[in-house]
Amino acid sequence: MEFVAILMGSKSDYPVMEECINVLKKFDVPYEIVISSAHRSPNRTKEYVKNAEEKGAKVFIAAAGMAAHLAGAVASMTAKPVIGVPLKGGVLDGLDSLLSTVQMPSGMPVATLALGKTGAVNSAYLAMQILALSNTELGEKLKEDRVMKAKNVELDSSEIEVIL
Amino acid sequence: MEFVAILMGSKSDYPVMEECINVLKKFDVPYEIVISSAHRSPNRTKEYVKNAEEKGAKVFIAAAGMAAHLAGAVASMTAKPVIGVPLKGGVLDGLDSLLSTVQMPSGMPVATLALGKTGAVNSAYLAMQILALSNTELGEKLKEDRVMKAKNVELDSSEIEVIL
Amino acid sequence: MEFVAILMGSKSDYPVMEECINVLKKFDVPYEIVISSAHRSPNRTKEYVKNAEEKGAKVFIAAAGMAAHLAGAVASMTAKPVIGVPLKGGVLDGLDSLLSTVQMPSGMPVATLALGKTGAVNSAYLAMQILALSNTELGEKLKEDRVMKAKNVELDSSEIEVIL
Amino acid sequence: MEFVAILMGSKSDYPVMEECINVLKKFDVPYEIVISSAHRSPNRTKEYVKNAEEKGAKVFIAAAGMAAHLAGAVASMTAKPVIGVPLKGGVLDGLDSLLSTVQMPSGMPVATLALGKTGAVNSAYLAMQILALSNTELGEKLKEDRVMKAKNVELDSSEIEVIL
Amino acid sequence: MEFVAILMGSKSDYPVMEECINVLKKFDVPYEIVISSAHRSPNRTKEYVKNAEEKGAKVFIAAAGMAAHLAGAVASMTAKPVIGVPLKGGVLDGLDSLLSTVQMPSGMPVATLALGKTGAVNSAYLAMQILALSNTELGEKLKEDRVMKAKNVELDSSEIEVIL
Amino acid sequence: MEFVAILMGSKSDYPVMEECINVLKKFDVPYEIVISSAHRSPNRTKEYVKNAEEKGAKVFIAAAGMAAHLAGAVASMTAKPVIGVPLKGGVLDGLDSLLSTVQMPSGMPVATLALGKTGAVNSAYLAMQILALSNTELGEKLKEDRVMKAKNVELDSSEIEVIL
Amino acid sequence: MEFVAILMGSKSDYPVMEECINVLKKFDVPYEIVISSAHRSPNRTKEYVKNAEEKGAKVFIAAAGMAAHLAGAVASMTAKPVIGVPLKGGVLDGLDSLLSTVQMPSGMPVATLALGKTGAVNSAYLAMQILALSNTELGEKLKEDRVMKAKNVELDSSEIEVIL
Amino acid sequence: MEFVAILMGSKSDYPVMEECINVLKKFDVPYEIVISSAHRSPNRTKEYVKNAEEKGAKVFIAAAGMAAHLAGAVASMTAKPVIGVPLKGGVLDGLDSLLSTVQMPSGMPVATLALGKTGAVNSAYLAMQILALSNTELGEKLKEDRVMKAKNVELDSSEIEVIL
Repeated sequence: MEFVAILMGSKSDYPVMEECINVLKKFDVPYEIVISSAHRSPNRTKEYVKNAEEKGAKVFIAAAGMAAHLAGAVASMTAKPVIGVPLKGGVLDGLDSLLSTVQMPSGMPVATLALGKTGAVNSAYLAMQILALSNTELGEKLKEDRVMKAKNVELDSSEIEVIL
Repeated sequence: MEFVAILMGSKSDYPVMEECINVLKKFDVPYEIVISSAHRSPNRTKEYVKNAEEKGAKVFIAAAGMAAHLAGAVASMTAKPVIGVPLKGGVLDGLDSLLSTVQMPSGMPVATLALGKTGAVNSAYLAMQILALSNTELGEKLKEDRVMKAKNVELDSSEIEVIL
Repeated sequence: MEFVAILMGSKSDYPVMEECINVLKKFDVPYEIVISSAHRSPNRTKEYVKNAEEKGAKVFIAAAGMAAHLAGAVASMTAKPVIGVPLKGGVLDGLDSLLSTVQMPSGMPVATLALGKTGAVNSAYLAMQILALSNTELGEKLKEDRVMKAKNVELDSSEIEVIL
Repeated sequence: MEFVAILMGSKSDYPVMEECINVLKKFDVPYEIVISSAHRSPNRTKEYVKNAEEKGAKVFIAAAGMAAHLAGAVASMTAKPVIGVPLKGGVLDGLDSLLSTVQMPSGMPVATLALGKTGAVNSAYLAMQILALSNTELGEKLKEDRVMKAKNVELDSSEIEVIL
Repeated sequence: MEFVAILMGSKSDYPVMEECINVLKKFDVPYEIVISSAHRSPNRTKEYVKNAEEKGAKVFIAAAGMAAHLAGAVASMTAKPVIGVPLKGGVLDGLDSLLSTVQMPSGMPVATLALGKTGAVNSAYLAMQILALSNTELGEKLKEDRVMKAKNVELDSSEIEVIL
Repeated sequence: MEFVAILMGSKSDYPVMEECINVLKKFDVPYEIVISSAHRSPNRTKEYVKNAEEKGAKVFIAAAGMAAHLAGAVASMTAKPVIGVPLKGGVLDGLDSLLSTVQMPSGMPVATLALGKTGAVNSAYLAMQILALSNTELGEKLKEDRVMKAKNVELDSSEIEVIL
Repeated sequence: MEFVAILMGSKSDYPVMEECINVLKKFDVPYEIVISSAHRSPNRTKEYVKNAEEKGAKVFIAAAGMAAHLAGAVASMTAKPVIGVPLKGGVLDGLDSLLSTVQMPSGMPVATLALGKTGAVNSAYLAMQILALSNTELGEKLKEDRVMKAKNVELDSSEIEVIL
Repeated sequence: MEFVAILMGSKSDYPVMEECINVLKKFDVPYEIVISSAHRSPNRTKEYVKNAEEKGAKVFIAAAGMAAHLAGAVASMTAKPVIGVPLKGGVLDGLDSLLSTVQMPSGMPVATLALGKTGAVNSAYLAMQILALSNTELGEKLKEDRVMKAKNVELDSSEIEVIL
């Protein structure tokens, strides 16, 4: 079965990554989610990535804060697409985790998204955009979502807009 | 035909994005590359994205510097995966283009990579990782590339290493 | 009718941009305000800018946070002056939206103001300074406002000042 | 006569601000340019702003580096629109002059543009966009310039583009 | 009479600058304090600096936030030592006011201190260190203060220290 | 007796450094902790370092905020390993203390750790790793701690994980 | 004899601090200059400061780069005014030395100036402004210098200015 | 045999890390140096760390740039002290590698040093300070080195100093 494999560096990252799960659930996209640390449990991380890939994981999402190495560690263990969600909490309002996630060396990309909850939501969207390349139904849902989003902008606007 | 569609904001970005093209060529992955600006040629950008998608573009790569809006603009026009390569040239050694590319709003992800040439190389790799999900041959090549990279590390090391 | 056209990227920006509206109201300057996103509703944004310009919009104000592309998107759609108000909310205490707004490419200026509420207030003032070039009455009001502001400094000072 | 009044903080800023002048010349827009420092010649600055305004200056452009106070100083002396061009040379690749220019207090806007030469070019464009509100001919020229810019993107692209 | 002349950019800066006043009071050093803005009341600022200098001001302290021009403006009006206290409130946790205060051009120094309350306290100390060069009594008090401070460290330590 | 010597710049640093003490206590590692300031009590600092070294201090830990000179000052007084814990509180979310601690000149290293409480915890761990080089029992405890940490990741994960 | 005492952290700082010396020479202000490091030669630094103060040093200037502790170290050893010149060379274009110099704790001010050569020049000016409080002749020279600087602005301008 | 184990992320890091080796050679401290990447050769890295520890490595030094994960990866594989040298080359003049190295999570310290060559030199010194805890001869050499460094400051100063 095709699914999205999500790793978080610590339990405290869960409330943020629930935003990712909620999006995947809404679109009926199967996922796994585990806690595994690049530093505290490197073997577990390696094992999980290997097993998940064998079981059908098509895309990995890794979320971590501070010196956020988790996404990079996953990227070193698989040639599947790896999405990184930098989390706030360290210095500079999250700049540490953003730079630690995005500045990967040649040949080892991590698809990095916005800091925090926005990045968590978008990790679900990016994973689905990737899966949709070979899943027409999901592709249609994503297009409808775009139409909905545009409509919601109009609705939001109608509550406050002033037109002469 | 499936291909990768590459957009650059200006002609001066070409020497950086050649690094991306060279990787795609090496792996025999078809691509298109055009110059189109989010600000100076918004209609051309929209048109190109629409046409490219109809012709078979599976992944978009957009490279731009300063207030780098190109990747975001492409992301607003398609639900296909969009990869952003922030380029140096402005303030803060490229922090302007990095933040302008990565901090996208909910539902509109841009898969952001490292600044400059490293990001250009990695945009090719990420695009190929995505295409490889439904292209076993390309997937094999990427795995071999990993083995090669590890071997090259050994070779590099052998030239200078000191072991007791 | 001449008016100021204000766009916000999302509903959550409204409390900040009310500061702009309040200033325009105080000076009896006509305005429109709508929500429209550069990314979630690009067509709506384009349409609005085109219509507003035809109806008489002389100056555009665009407020957005994070990878703040809205002002730049508006600037790509009109040759009227575009004022950008970067909003806080992302990383680095708003540095992301400041750099995304101000670092526009050659020929595509966005008149960028301070972050947050101060920028919102000043977007109204800058718009009025521009309109006042062909509106003597408004120009007089702006000069009186300056005199008032200087007097208020004196008043504020009188409450706490210590003079030997 | 209507004109654009340009101030620079020091002689070394001239090579950058020539980019501004060149644009104004190309569009036949009258301008004055002087060197005057917010700190070394505050009286001269005040005098110049007062005289220029009386002679017909409609927009002021002020360019300075480091703790760039010149644009703010001009803004404190006139209620005409003031455009600030932050120049590189200090710390953080120009962040000092950018923040010193853009973070003006309530009621005292400085329309801030990109750092360095791009900002210099754009200061000319923004000044012209403002003047064009009551100068139809200039407005037409600006629209043609947009068309030209879009065409140049196509030309640039044609030299390197690869289309399948 | 010799005194320290203190200027603040706005009423909201008063709670911070009270820290400065309290130190001066404790050491019986005469001072004046007024609100005057570099931008909203430039004439008042100029007038105040001129009068204060004639009345005997030996050192000026100027406190402001955001694009903090006040200290620089005072420095352009007098050749007496000018101390700058950058205040928080803008972007980057006060980096805007710090850079706007410290990065003054050649020949126009502003003696810049730490951000916020610490800087306010230290502006009083630096002013007193300067006055003490020709005031032996004040010099003795400052030396005693140092002894006291060292003793307080010992006292603080004694409450929590663990010595084997 | 071998012990770890901990210095803090001020009483307000104690709640953070308690995290360090708690770890040392848990592992039964002897320590001393005192308050001493690089600036307010330089003689006390020098004396303490000299005495502590004579009494058996093997590693020094110094914690300070803002222009955090304490660790560097200790490093200039001893050739024993010095660990620096930068504390938050100044500008840029602690970047001031981080840079002030880590950027030491040639030959004068300060082993710098993460900002705040995480750095405090890690200062205990790094000190113990150093002591463990000649203390097999402590070395075993550290290895067990690693095993425990990995197990805790599994436990944390089991509470929330979703496996297909 | 009254003089200015200048310390540099290393020989490589000399070319920058020559800018300071040149200004002092031009104004016939006596000075001493030595190399002494806060970290590599703490005793020498302490000795020098003590001796210099006894010999008549009225103001100290300390220049250093990276984790620039020299000015703070001097400030901890004397209650005379201490001026800090942060030098470039480390990370962030000198932000490390700027923050390490300016963010001093309560009661221990370092009068911090601009980064690099501008700060070096201004350290001479600030020292002279302080000395001029009890040296009328020097005070007159400083006022003349201001007049000269304003005239030079006019001269510079005359070479390039365009007046309608 | 006791030795220092040095890892670099890539061949291009060698010229910087030669500074580390040169110091170790000068003090006759045995070392190993290899190239191994956290991302391109994770297995090799793990293997090397395991073998080196078994062979007698007492301290690990890891140098890497950009999203510098190497030191953190080593720290996850051993409970021996790990020293991190962040290298320049990415964004923000090396801030990316500094933050990626220093901001390690609880229980997983990396002893982080200055960016680039200074950090490389200091990694040798810190390693030796650690080894010297159980190597009296090395400890004496380090003390002599301190005396030498202080003397060199005097020598450097004698070439340029001006004493009244």
